[in-house]
Amino acid sequence: MRQPETIRQAIKALSKLPGIGQKTANRLVFYILSQHRELGQEISDTLLQACTSIHLCPECCNFTDTDLCPICTDAERNRNIICIVESASDVEAIEKTGVYHGLYHVLHGSISPLRNIGPNDIHLKELFNRLLQNPAISEIILANNVGTEGESTALYIARLLQPSGIKISQMAHGIPVGSNLEFADEVTLGQAISNRREIERPGS
Amino acid sequence: MRQPETIRQAIKALSKLPGIGQKTANRLVFYILSQHRELGQEISDTLLQACTSIHLCPECCNFTDTDLCPICTDAERNRNIICIVESASDVEAIEKTGVYHGLYHVLHGSISPLRNIGPNDIHLKELFNRLLQNPAISEIILANNVGTEGESTALYIARLLQPSGIKISQMAHGIPVGSNLEFADEVTLGQAISNRREIERPGS
Repeated sequence: MRQPETIRQAIKALSKLPGIGQKTANRLVFYILSQHRELGQEISDTLLQACTSIHLCPECCNFTDTDLCPICTDAERNRNIICIVESASDVEAIEKTGVYHGLYHVLHGSISPLRNIGPNDIHLKELFNRLLQNPAISEIILANNVGTEGESTALYIARLLQPSGIKISQMAHGIPVGSNLEFADEVTLGQAISNRREIERPGS
Repeated sequence: MRQPETIRQAIKALSKLPGIGQKTANRLVFYILSQHRELGQEISDTLLQACTSIHLCPECCNFTDTDLCPICTDAERNRNIICIVESASDVEAIEKTGVYHGLYHVLHGSISPLRNIGPNDIHLKELFNRLLQNPAISEIILANNVGTEGESTALYIARLLQPSGIKISQMAHGIPVGSNLEFADEVTLGQAISNRREIERPGS
């Protein structure tokens, strides 16, 4: 017996999501059909809504449903510093810390010759235009992901921006807060030793 | 900064699915928005389609998009035997074996006093009506899931059907094919010993 065509189509669509295989998709669709049809409706509606209303902010390339994104229009933010991230979810993660008050630039990917993604396939042109139009920008933080692709993208941007004289910084590598030394991998531990900081003496 | 409302709604909806938490939902929505909007559209369309077109077969309670399901209308199937399963995906699993050629009855759940699910909350009434209207049915296979709820549901059905004189059978428990003895749990191993079968002598 073959499944009804509509069920097979729904399973096929869901199984295209990352981390969701045929079996999980099967389970999800049957879960929805069994007793949660209103959830199926809700997922359908909200996904469609998101896909049609969300576009990239013309300034920072972050996802937004307004003309400019809320961060680019926020007068309270420090407009002299831009943090470059790979994806919109990185913006989320940094915003949650509450530590950073500058602007962002979302690349939506990293340079990867293996996957045939060149500098023109990520939103670098928008970054350089932005820097040209805003001479007030004095610092760029490279917050690309760790790994070959992220690091080579960061290096590429750093080299291109070097002649501009803009200060370029990078996220600190080291032992995660609250973690034990023995659980840190060698590279992290090595970086943590190389980048050690002098403790300021109290009262100095 | 708060995420655009439409993104938050989509994340909230997806995170209601079993096994998908806030973080996974976040990742999935950003995956779709980044470079896979046509996939978002496809999931939205197919889920809506499935939720609106799929209903329960009035005969066996399996999911179908036709009046009666393909199994109930198939003249080739043995109409004297009904296999009772908990969910439509169990039908799928049994059909894939190609061993069973009878009919099914999908309960869509099992009796669970703890979760406040009584005999009237699963499709038992439809089963009994079916048995009353089809005196030709000579065997019922109880293929409920293993576990307290599944087994007590099977017991409940078996007790109710006992006076009818219909043959009631159960799936065999034993060592999975291709598995090593040492990896089987004690209960399975015990059942495999108790239910041992005599090997027929060649030529006998």
